[in-house]
Amino acid sequence: MIKNILLTIEYDGTEFCGWQKQPGKRSVQGELERALSIVCKQPIPINGTSRTDAGVHAYGQQASFQADLGIPTDRIALAVNPILAAEAPGKGGKNLRMAGDILIKDAKEMPLDFHARFNAVGKKYIFKIKNSKDLDVFGRNYQYQVTSFLDIEEMRKAAAFIAGTHDFKCFQSTGGKKLETTVRTIYSIKLLEKEDGILLIEVTGDGFLYNMVRIITGTLVEVGTGKLAADRIPIIIESKNRSMAGHTAPPQGLYLAEVYYRKENLHED
Amino acid sequence: MIKNILLTIEYDGTEFCGWQKQPGKRSVQGELERALSIVCKQPIPINGTSRTDAGVHAYGQQASFQADLGIPTDRIALAVNPILAAEAPGKGGKNLRMAGDILIKDAKEMPLDFHARFNAVGKKYIFKIKNSKDLDVFGRNYQYQVTSFLDIEEMRKAAAFIAGTHDFKCFQSTGGKKLETTVRTIYSIKLLEKEDGILLIEVTGDGFLYNMVRIITGTLVEVGTGKLAADRIPIIIESKNRSMAGHTAPPQGLYLAEVYYRKENLHED
Repeated sequence: MIKNILLTIEYDGTEFCGWQKQPGKRSVQGELERALSIVCKQPIPINGTSRTDAGVHAYGQQASFQADLGIPTDRIALAVNPILAAEAPGKGGKNLRMAGDILIKDAKEMPLDFHARFNAVGKKYIFKIKNSKDLDVFGRNYQYQVTSFLDIEEMRKAAAFIAGTHDFKCFQSTGGKKLETTVRTIYSIKLLEKEDGILLIEVTGDGFLYNMVRIITGTLVEVGTGKLAADRIPIIIESKNRSMAGHTAPPQGLYLAEVYYRKENLHED
Repeated sequence: MIKNILLTIEYDGTEFCGWQKQPGKRSVQGELERALSIVCKQPIPINGTSRTDAGVHAYGQQASFQADLGIPTDRIALAVNPILAAEAPGKGGKNLRMAGDILIKDAKEMPLDFHARFNAVGKKYIFKIKNSKDLDVFGRNYQYQVTSFLDIEEMRKAAAFIAGTHDFKCFQSTGGKKLETTVRTIYSIKLLEKEDGILLIEVTGDGFLYNMVRIITGTLVEVGTGKLAADRIPIIIESKNRSMAGHTAPPQGLYLAEVYYRKENLHED
C-alpha cells in the first residue's frame, strides 16, 4: 500500500553542497535518498521544504515521499540513521553509536495529497552569532563570529521595522528562482541573548526570499556596530534596492529551525 | 637576536591527521609551521608538548621554537591567526573575521634552554561524553555519544581507584613509542556533570601512555553501564593486561586542556 511519509530531519550542513542534489557533489537530499532507497529496496525521490545552501544547518527540515515502504513507518528512522552515520565523513561516522551529519528525527504518515513544500505555510530560521573578541575554533562552522561590540537594543529597534508584511526585495540576493512577488510576511523576529556572547536571531515568516535571513542578519549586524542607524530600515525596505541593505551574513550561522503546516501554529509562535 | 617562544594553541582536530607532520597529510604542526614560516620569513620548526592523534582537540596545546623573529612576540598571534583562518577548510575559513581550525591564543618569551615537551611536568586532558538517548549531529566530532544510561556514582568510585601512582600498562595501546616505564601518577580524575547530558572527565597527571585517557574513559563507561564493577579496577591495574580494561573511547571526545611547567600548579589543580 502506498503511503505518504513526512520526515523531520536534523543536519549539520558543513560537509554538504546544500540540500539539493547536484551531480558529483554530496547533498543532504542525495544522501537521504540513497539511504532510504537501501532500506525500502526501491528508488525513493524526496521533496524537501527548503533548499538550504552549502554550510546551512537544520534542526527541523521537512521532506515527504510516497512509497510502498516494506517496513512500518516508526521503523524508518531506526533503519536509516545507522546507514547515514556509517557513510558520514569525519571521526564520528565510523562509530555506529554516534550520529552522522544527517539524522531523521521523526517519520509520520500524511494524507496522500500532502506535499512537504507546497503545504508549508511558514518557517522559522535561527541565525547564531557569537559576539566576542575571543575567536573560537570549535564554532567556526556553526556560528557567525562578530568581534566588534554589538548594540543589541539598537538591533531590536531595527528588527521591529522588519516585522510585518512588506516587499522585501532589498533583502533578496540575485540568483534565486524567478518569483511572482517579493512581498512576504515576517510574523516575528526575536533577538535572544545566550551565554558566552551567543546571540540568536529567530525569524518566523510565511516565506523567505533567496538569502533573506542572511541579509537581514548582515543588516542587523551593521546596525549593531553603528554603521547603520536603526531608523534607516524603513527607507531601505522602501528602496527595494539590495545595495542599500547590509552584507550577506555567512551561511554557517543559519539553521532551518521549524516548518509550519498550520496557520494557527505560525501565529502562536 | 634569537628568542625562544612558547605558544599556547587551540585547535579543532577534526580535519587533521593529528599533531605530528606526516607526508601528504594535513597536520596541526605542519599548518602552524607553514604559517609561522610565512610571517617570520624563514623555516620555523616547532616542538609540541603532546602528539595528539587524528580527531583529538586542544584548548591548550603548547609548542616552542627558537628564531630571530623579525616581529615583536606579542604580534605573533595577530599575524599568524589570519593566515591559519584563510587556509582552513570549511565555510568559516574564507571569512577572515572567523577563526580557522587552529588558533594561537598566546605567545611568550622563555629562557633559551626551555623546551615545550621536555620541560612539561604534567598535563590535563578533558574527555567529553554526551549521555543521552537523543543523538546529536552537531556533536559528532566533539564528543563521545553514549546512549545507555551511565551510573556516574559508580564511575566516580572506579575513578578513585585510578588516581595515584601506578603501573598503568593495562591502559596503554600498542603502537606507542618504546618507554622505560609505564608507571605514571594521576593527580586527579574528576567527573563533572553539565547541561544536556554532557559529562566531562578531567584527568590530570604527570604523563600519559599511548591512548591512556581514551582507555580510562572506555573503562569508566563500562563501569557506568554496569558491564564492569567499580571494584574490579584495582585488579585490572594489577594485571597490567590491556585486554582486561575497557574499550578505547573514540578520539573526538578528547581535548588536551592544559600543560603544566611548574609542579606547584599541578598539585594545586
